[in-house]
Amino acid sequence: MSTQPSSPAKSWQARISEATDSIAQAFVESVSYDWRLYKQDVAGSICHAHMLSAVGLLPDEDREAIIGGLREIEAEIDRQKQNWPGFKPEFEDIHMCVEAELIKRVGEAGRKLHTGRSRNDQVATDLMLWTIFATKELGELYANVLKAFVAMADRSADIVMPSYTHLQRAQPIAAGAEVLAWTEALSRGYERLARFAANYEFPLGAGAIAGSSLPLDRKQTLWFAKRFGILAEDTNRLAMSSIDATATRDVAQEFVFGLAMISQTLSRWAEQWILYMSTEFGFIKIADRYTTSSSMMPQKRNPDMLELIRGRSANVYGDLFAMMTLLKGIPIGYNRDLQEDKRILFRAYDTVTQCLIMAAAIIDSASFDKSRIEPTLDRGFLDATSLAEYLVTQKVPFRTAHHIVGTLVATCEKSGRHALAQLKLEEINAVVASLQPGAALTDDVYTALGAANVVKRYQSTGAAGGKPFQEQLAAWKKRAGL
Amino acid sequence: MSTQPSSPAKSWQARISEATDSIAQAFVESVSYDWRLYKQDVAGSICHAHMLSAVGLLPDEDREAIIGGLREIEAEIDRQKQNWPGFKPEFEDIHMCVEAELIKRVGEAGRKLHTGRSRNDQVATDLMLWTIFATKELGELYANVLKAFVAMADRSADIVMPSYTHLQRAQPIAAGAEVLAWTEALSRGYERLARFAANYEFPLGAGAIAGSSLPLDRKQTLWFAKRFGILAEDTNRLAMSSIDATATRDVAQEFVFGLAMISQTLSRWAEQWILYMSTEFGFIKIADRYTTSSSMMPQKRNPDMLELIRGRSANVYGDLFAMMTLLKGIPIGYNRDLQEDKRILFRAYDTVTQCLIMAAAIIDSASFDKSRIEPTLDRGFLDATSLAEYLVTQKVPFRTAHHIVGTLVATCEKSGRHALAQLKLEEINAVVASLQPGAALTDDVYTALGAANVVKRYQSTGAAGGKPFQEQLAAWKKRAGL
Amino acid sequence: MSTQPSSPAKSWQARISEATDSIAQAFVESVSYDWRLYKQDVAGSICHAHMLSAVGLLPDEDREAIIGGLREIEAEIDRQKQNWPGFKPEFEDIHMCVEAELIKRVGEAGRKLHTGRSRNDQVATDLMLWTIFATKELGELYANVLKAFVAMADRSADIVMPSYTHLQRAQPIAAGAEVLAWTEALSRGYERLARFAANYEFPLGAGAIAGSSLPLDRKQTLWFAKRFGILAEDTNRLAMSSIDATATRDVAQEFVFGLAMISQTLSRWAEQWILYMSTEFGFIKIADRYTTSSSMMPQKRNPDMLELIRGRSANVYGDLFAMMTLLKGIPIGYNRDLQEDKRILFRAYDTVTQCLIMAAAIIDSASFDKSRIEPTLDRGFLDATSLAEYLVTQKVPFRTAHHIVGTLVATCEKSGRHALAQLKLEEINAVVASLQPGAALTDDVYTALGAANVVKRYQSTGAAGGKPFQEQLAAWKKRAGL
Amino acid sequence: MSTQPSSPAKSWQARISEATDSIAQAFVESVSYDWRLYKQDVAGSICHAHMLSAVGLLPDEDREAIIGGLREIEAEIDRQKQNWPGFKPEFEDIHMCVEAELIKRVGEAGRKLHTGRSRNDQVATDLMLWTIFATKELGELYANVLKAFVAMADRSADIVMPSYTHLQRAQPIAAGAEVLAWTEALSRGYERLARFAANYEFPLGAGAIAGSSLPLDRKQTLWFAKRFGILAEDTNRLAMSSIDATATRDVAQEFVFGLAMISQTLSRWAEQWILYMSTEFGFIKIADRYTTSSSMMPQKRNPDMLELIRGRSANVYGDLFAMMTLLKGIPIGYNRDLQEDKRILFRAYDTVTQCLIMAAAIIDSASFDKSRIEPTLDRGFLDATSLAEYLVTQKVPFRTAHHIVGTLVATCEKSGRHALAQLKLEEINAVVASLQPGAALTDDVYTALGAANVVKRYQSTGAAGGKPFQEQLAAWKKRAGL
Repeated sequence: MSTQPSSPAKSWQARISEATDSIAQAFVESVSYDWRLYKQDVAGSICHAHMLSAVGLLPDEDREAIIGGLREIEAEIDRQKQNWPGFKPEFEDIHMCVEAELIKRVGEAGRKLHTGRSRNDQVATDLMLWTIFATKELGELYANVLKAFVAMADRSADIVMPSYTHLQRAQPIAAGAEVLAWTEALSRGYERLARFAANYEFPLGAGAIAGSSLPLDRKQTLWFAKRFGILAEDTNRLAMSSIDATATRDVAQEFVFGLAMISQTLSRWAEQWILYMSTEFGFIKIADRYTTSSSMMPQKRNPDMLELIRGRSANVYGDLFAMMTLLKGIPIGYNRDLQEDKRILFRAYDTVTQCLIMAAAIIDSASFDKSRIEPTLDRGFLDATSLAEYLVTQKVPFRTAHHIVGTLVATCEKSGRHALAQLKLEEINAVVASLQPGAALTDDVYTALGAANVVKRYQSTGAAGGKPFQEQLAAWKKRAGL
Repeated sequence: MSTQPSSPAKSWQARISEATDSIAQAFVESVSYDWRLYKQDVAGSICHAHMLSAVGLLPDEDREAIIGGLREIEAEIDRQKQNWPGFKPEFEDIHMCVEAELIKRVGEAGRKLHTGRSRNDQVATDLMLWTIFATKELGELYANVLKAFVAMADRSADIVMPSYTHLQRAQPIAAGAEVLAWTEALSRGYERLARFAANYEFPLGAGAIAGSSLPLDRKQTLWFAKRFGILAEDTNRLAMSSIDATATRDVAQEFVFGLAMISQTLSRWAEQWILYMSTEFGFIKIADRYTTSSSMMPQKRNPDMLELIRGRSANVYGDLFAMMTLLKGIPIGYNRDLQEDKRILFRAYDTVTQCLIMAAAIIDSASFDKSRIEPTLDRGFLDATSLAEYLVTQKVPFRTAHHIVGTLVATCEKSGRHALAQLKLEEINAVVASLQPGAALTDDVYTALGAANVVKRYQSTGAAGGKPFQEQLAAWKKRAGL
Repeated sequence: MSTQPSSPAKSWQARISEATDSIAQAFVESVSYDWRLYKQDVAGSICHAHMLSAVGLLPDEDREAIIGGLREIEAEIDRQKQNWPGFKPEFEDIHMCVEAELIKRVGEAGRKLHTGRSRNDQVATDLMLWTIFATKELGELYANVLKAFVAMADRSADIVMPSYTHLQRAQPIAAGAEVLAWTEALSRGYERLARFAANYEFPLGAGAIAGSSLPLDRKQTLWFAKRFGILAEDTNRLAMSSIDATATRDVAQEFVFGLAMISQTLSRWAEQWILYMSTEFGFIKIADRYTTSSSMMPQKRNPDMLELIRGRSANVYGDLFAMMTLLKGIPIGYNRDLQEDKRILFRAYDTVTQCLIMAAAIIDSASFDKSRIEPTLDRGFLDATSLAEYLVTQKVPFRTAHHIVGTLVATCEKSGRHALAQLKLEEINAVVASLQPGAALTDDVYTALGAANVVKRYQSTGAAGGKPFQEQLAAWKKRAGL
Repeated sequence: MSTQPSSPAKSWQARISEATDSIAQAFVESVSYDWRLYKQDVAGSICHAHMLSAVGLLPDEDREAIIGGLREIEAEIDRQKQNWPGFKPEFEDIHMCVEAELIKRVGEAGRKLHTGRSRNDQVATDLMLWTIFATKELGELYANVLKAFVAMADRSADIVMPSYTHLQRAQPIAAGAEVLAWTEALSRGYERLARFAANYEFPLGAGAIAGSSLPLDRKQTLWFAKRFGILAEDTNRLAMSSIDATATRDVAQEFVFGLAMISQTLSRWAEQWILYMSTEFGFIKIADRYTTSSSMMPQKRNPDMLELIRGRSANVYGDLFAMMTLLKGIPIGYNRDLQEDKRILFRAYDTVTQCLIMAAAIIDSASFDKSRIEPTLDRGFLDATSLAEYLVTQKVPFRTAHHIVGTLVATCEKSGRHALAQLKLEEINAVVASLQPGAALTDDVYTALGAANVVKRYQSTGAAGGKPFQEQLAAWKKRAGL
């Protein structure tokens, strides 16, 4: 039909007579990065076409032509990725590139697809579908790290090590318990992301801002999206304000916040292990292939990958604040600023996925170095709390018990002894009696002293040794499929 | 009992001989702000005492003495707030201040309360209980804003106004529909906060880091917390890793993120209304008492309160960034850096609550100024999309319809007419026929033109006028109790 | 020499027996982005070679071989950019890629270049040289925007428009004066960047962390750097602590802060013009090629490029916070986290340069629309301050004058008049006399009323009209070379 | 004078009939924190009065009355601080409180002070003067930290310790050299702040936005400000655009950026020392009064003050982000959002000053623990680089030397020896000859081995031992006045 413009992306030229110059085109295009939405764009369009057809706005044969064309396009991009010839910067974005190609292939039918739809609700839909997809993808990487952590906790179950608060030695723990602490934090991070996704409100049909005067049936579109598996079965929320639906980027912000929280956990974990890999600690060994050396210092074996995980998490923080700043200053309705959301979103996602891959590999190769941990286990009075709790079982009020043990620690330090177990029973009882008149301990007190003894004594749910730790480990192994 | 130190806060001086000097004391104390946790601290301690008693670590009479003492202390602080004499900086924090006072009042029994507990799990618990409390408090303020918004939407239901994308006139809407868009965004913000709270993991019993060798029953503590109404009935999660439970501040970060998202909505809304209050727009009027004037320019009436809402939201962003930065660089286990979390949390909460109070008052006083909106409603071709959709109902493919209307708009502009309704039917049909050969419209087309007509035509769920808007309004009125 | 490893980048494999696997390689490499430092890397190496030679650590012929080889390499990269075959991810970074290629080309001599140097001081040097180069580059783009702004101020000099505080009409100004306000802010932004560069401390020679036991002469290296024009003639600072020199990234942080401040100005300017391009204001027109339309709404002409400038500035904010977060959590000495600094730096720089290019083009095409500004100039009592100041010249204290004018404005509003000039002299004098007994004005008061009159009356340096504005304009024209 | 309103702050009520309600008043007032500007406010007003008088707008007797009244007010606030009865929330801000009190005291003359001035330029002036004052104050605290660091470097000059890159042992250094690295970083931080202040542009006289129609002489105001010592003698810049001068907050942003950079240094230093205070490192001891203990674990001695310094620096980051976000979204001209700048500024300043006070005290009490450092000095092959450089002096190309030493380190590790000095000369020469045919070392090589030997050998300017370190130390002692 020769009277038609060849490209929908340029249809606005019907009104704007001057040509967009090349600087402006490069500045304004987004297809160089938003092409990654192609599967979501196709899927959303197919749902939309089904709905249009169901309400009588699209003949069946047009719907079939559209769906056939879109499937072909999707298959081509599956193969060619960003090199697909249909990705042309002059069409600006993924939506227009796909629609232009569709019209080229199926003609008149293709010109009907955008009925009752705007790029404003289309991109909000694509973004939402993509974060659902991305959350799933990320779930697989998370599962790998989970497995790696749990396997490590399992193989380290019988190593006793110090725990730290304020980076000072605190109480003895099963080495695996610290590994499970990271597991817990990371799992909470992943589940938060998944929970965000479960509460999304489906925007397709919101149009440019005000909805449509055509008899669209948005519930049907939602139904198709669930039937095609791009939305979860339990999603039942339609975005109920067309104005809000096209102006909000809560989905993107929640997603990036979730990623930033995961990054925080990865960063803290990396920091911890960098510490443990220092000459001074020496608690952890990882494979040499995850360390590098120095161009000047021939002896170095640096934990570069861990440092990069820690460093890259700063980037995800930057992404979160870029995203939130982007939103803060703009009025309601779609503003072009929002185009940047995808650049930020993809960047944060790529950083986190790469870090998760790297993390799983490092953890798989890691082990606690018992030969470095054990010799200093009697340093730092790790059993002090255990002794105080032992005193509680002997009817000494906890505050008094705390005071007694503090005094005993001071006794050790003044006399050059570095462990409470080195005190004689008489010495202990002298202090006990002075602060809790009438109380006296027996030899049994030594069962509460020494890191190895202490770890076995833990009883409270979630504790870092003994039965509570075994229960945690068993639960995680089940969850990790180990 | 004279052999006992008079204050538990200083019990560590049994070991550290030098006195903490006054600079250090002022630097390290937190009671000047964490006193706000007193109700949560008392409540947590009561649950803990009940549990200790249930497992045989605390005689019944001691439990009753403790609970009695704590209730007295709480009642005093209820009255005296931060002026309560028990708040002494040398005791550092709320936890130690309360415990010291308790021991002063109930003696030996009070020395048993801290059994199996550390300030590390205690503060994590208090923080969690406080955010649950704060979420409820904030819920009341949110409900006020909700009511104010819905009432305004209701009283503006029959005003037609332009909507904007890119701050350019887009489509006509019911003025109330824009108000409901803010309602939607703010409600999502509040519900996000509430959802965070529903997934908290209860940390009490995690101890300093490794749990306890005493036979604590954390499920009982949780049960008491629910029975006493400080945790929701449906909370069933115990923090399962004592190490993670004392090292994480996910609760605080989620809460501040939730507040920052609410701030973002308030900021965008304030920005929008500042715009609408300019001479050029003039769409909205608010009470004079929420404007101020100038020290130099006698004629000014400035929307200062709205500007301050917009400005203060930047503070909440800063709080989120501070909180997340705080966490990033620290190893596992409690680190004193974490003390800052409360300073940040309270600051963010206070900012948001004040803004919500102010917002409700402003909205209650606000009205759309029909006399300013109506005269320019025919500017900006607000009915262009409606015309394109009308063409779709006449079997013109949407892309072609879009092209036709673009050409008609250009026709208007070239001939100095500012509204599509000013075109004669012949003019319209000339363009229609040239781009969609064979198609022709009748006079009926004019029912799709003019802002007032268009608003009535909206059909899609969530649309900003017509029946879909009425449905939204009805739903919100029900929810707001109006 | 067959006993030698073929590549210096892998020399650390002499100690680390396991091969770095491919995941780790991709994770750790930086050459895919730090290749952009190649000119700085070559220049730094040439200075280093000259110094080594001068102190007798490098024979003259080796120096010449090295310099010749490096110049060849630079010339090749000039042509091939990132496609240069020497950029191999297995060599990790630009430094090792260049050194490996050099050794391949010049053999034994090349193996001597890294004498007394580490990648730690090398990358700090490259980064510093690059920011100096980038500041110059950016200076040219800034100069374009400067010219565009000044030319616009010049061609708008005789248009009177309202100024706004609180987005409420404030006082009348020469339209060009607002343009010069942006000029001022942007210039301050550029000069800040330039001032940062003038205070850099040259790190080359700091080695890995502790300096060198070889007799390096860092002052000579600095002298060569100035002679070769890569450092400014007035740079005289050597970094005086080798430990700090390799651990700091102050240079990168200052640069990104400077960029973020420029972005802030660009964002505020874009926001302002988006406002001015709304139907309601209509004060500014820009070329159609810098606007786009809508996929759904055929009538739209959106200021997308301005919106993108505003939006992208959020990215630069994110970059600043990523950079600062990156640094906060790491101990002294080089840590691999620092590698991320370049990714962030380049991203921020690219964003800002693209925005500056776009801004200049938009401003060149822009004009104030007198036909829209003039008809409403008598709205908003823009002359109220002028009248108060006129009263001051009649010996009325300013506070009283302010009160009088406030009352006159109220008189206008109550009687449906929208301009002070519509008041009769008797009306004015009635108010004057009531608040400043004895005072009375003559007809001369009307010379202080009306926006056009007021603008001519400005006298204070820097004022937004009259002679002060003409002086500003003249100064800027001279500075912009117009 | 009964026809006059009693308070200038309420003069705008002449126009706005409704009363500002109490919620709004509390929301909008700033005097509860901006009272801290009182000295700057008075000083600025005195300069303004002198100028008004000089240009004939203020009779001499009025000027003297004003100055006398202002001096009285200042003296009262000096004594009563925030409790001064003139600070009334209904006057909103410091400016109006002072002016109201002045009028109360000196009558009619006081009503003339605000001539040609707005709160918009007044607050910009006060803010600038305050940051100049605050920079000086902070300079004293910085000087204390400087002295503490330099004294510590001096008393630690003969202790040899390992340096770290990637937290792995790198090269041996004089312990004082690491202390001087922090000194260097902190000094750069302070000087940056001072340099910002030197480039300020004086805004007084810019008025509300457009300047004034009165014959103000801003150069005279500037001259007075310098004469009264509130601006430095070398300040010669007037803000040249009245519009920009009242809209910008570059001064506040630069100041907070400068503070954030200082915080970063303090945070990194604190992190480093926390590490050094762990059981595993044990390199540093600080006074017990700067540590605290645990409520549960009786043996703990935690570096809480250092952790709080690290933690609080996150707050300053938040402040910077809040400040920059505040500015980003607002149009030109004064907007009330800007009022928040002071809240943020004061908060950041208070945090940093408290941390500097605390830091000086901690450093004064600190010492390196030679008894912990020395025994492990032969771990980590700290002399590897030294050996490679020794080989360079024997004509071995550096890359080859690096390879040789890498091989020797591997030889040690395989044979269970932990120091290069444990290798026999034959073993060394075997490797040397295999990689650099023809080369051979003598016994002299052992002078390059062993940490203590290596530290003495450093020659390059800025190096961390030997003469370069002595030169640094001497320069810093001179600068610190030691």
